[in-house]
Amino acid sequence: MIIIGEKINGFIKKTREAIEAKDAAYIKELAIKQQECRSSYIDICAGTAQEIEMETMEWLIGLVQEVSDLPISLDSSDPQILIDCIPLCNKPGMINSVSMEEGKVEKIFPIIADTDWNVVALTCNQDGIPNDAETKFAIAKDIIAAAHKYGIAENRVYIDPLVTTLGTSSDSMLNFVGALKLIKAELPGAFTTSGLSNISYGLPYRKSINMQFLCLCMDAGLDSAILDPLDPYMQSVIYATNALLGKDDYCMEYLDAYREGLLPVKPE
Amino acid sequence: MIIIGEKINGFIKKTREAIEAKDAAYIKELAIKQQECRSSYIDICAGTAQEIEMETMEWLIGLVQEVSDLPISLDSSDPQILIDCIPLCNKPGMINSVSMEEGKVEKIFPIIADTDWNVVALTCNQDGIPNDAETKFAIAKDIIAAAHKYGIAENRVYIDPLVTTLGTSSDSMLNFVGALKLIKAELPGAFTTSGLSNISYGLPYRKSINMQFLCLCMDAGLDSAILDPLDPYMQSVIYATNALLGKDDYCMEYLDAYREGLLPVKPE
Repeated sequence: MIIIGEKINGFIKKTREAIEAKDAAYIKELAIKQQECRSSYIDICAGTAQEIEMETMEWLIGLVQEVSDLPISLDSSDPQILIDCIPLCNKPGMINSVSMEEGKVEKIFPIIADTDWNVVALTCNQDGIPNDAETKFAIAKDIIAAAHKYGIAENRVYIDPLVTTLGTSSDSMLNFVGALKLIKAELPGAFTTSGLSNISYGLPYRKSINMQFLCLCMDAGLDSAILDPLDPYMQSVIYATNALLGKDDYCMEYLDAYREGLLPVKPE
Repeated sequence: MIIIGEKINGFIKKTREAIEAKDAAYIKELAIKQQECRSSYIDICAGTAQEIEMETMEWLIGLVQEVSDLPISLDSSDPQILIDCIPLCNKPGMINSVSMEEGKVEKIFPIIADTDWNVVALTCNQDGIPNDAETKFAIAKDIIAAAHKYGIAENRVYIDPLVTTLGTSSDSMLNFVGALKLIKAELPGAFTTSGLSNISYGLPYRKSINMQFLCLCMDAGLDSAILDPLDPYMQSVIYATNALLGKDDYCMEYLDAYREGLLPVKPE
């Protein structure tokens, strides 16, 4: 499981407060802890007003690179911000994100074509976010076709089939997993990822839904997730499910994660 | 999910102490709470020395029936004890368990043939407990054939494909789920159940393994589980997974379970 650590995101209350207060120590601590908790990428999303987004991104990228050598996942809805942040990074990372909305891949793909940057691609387009597996998969195919057009191999693309909210559509998970299975079968080589938590929007005790959603997605072949790596309950899902799926001989990785303190301390 | 509440079992330390101390109030409380937490059956296992097993079972059955109208799951490795306990029960319940070990079905099936008792059937025989899905399924077929011989319909049989320990065999879950899927496909009408917790024997933070195992088993069609219904974490798996699998319109059952206090209070 390739973890994209989500903590440095201005849409998270505590992080927003740290950004507003220019609390560099707090941001650096988030980067260090997420690396310790086995993130593969550290996501950076300013979540600020548009006019200060670029300067905020620059400040955050600098702080993270002071304390961590992990690749950065540049997270913005504005493709120009993503492009402008690339030269600030010490090494290639992840562009988070493109979609088939007009102007996204056309702007981003030429810039990263001849680099080692990877990219998260959301299965939405100008018609919005589809809930059904077939349309999600159709957009995924469009994205891979566009990537190929620019010479970007499918193994640099992390497709997120955008899960909808379970409280309003009972088939949210079934459609997400349906799309996931189609992508794994029909677009071999492409990676899959998920922001996960939209599934539980509006429900109480959201973590329970998020945990079992992650488990079922891993069973269906999900390669990566954008999540809080400091959360021992989510980590416990990753290591327990990985072992249950027969991918962890003698539970060595599970036991190692337990010894390193990644799993909950109390037996619950 | 048909829950067989496991708490009244002399192999559980606190319950054993209550049995030894003849603490009737404690046992009755366990029965009441398990009913409140939506058990379908209350399992009773004396777990004592053989010479006092029958009198202990009789005492426990009496206590449970004083406070609960749920059917009882009679739990003993001794088929004669199971047979002798049947007349003590106010209504038909569950025989836990038979297997294809010699002398089990031959003794039990004729007694329950013309009754409404159900039965848990373990996929083991004189050769022991198989780990591979095919042998588990072959024994399941033998059990259903034996049931039919005595005129017992398959929908009175709860097959437990006996999960082995993940710490020593990495394919424990895969084989269990493989057997489960074969049973659901090839023996339609028969129910499936699982004692669950053997999967995590010897591992730290067992609950994590048990939770994700339950989730993956529900996805594969498990009908029933023998578990602690007072455990909010296991309940959260049941209600979250059920909703994720598209079986809970607008998460009404999930929300109801939350309001009734079945799920963890804290958001983790």
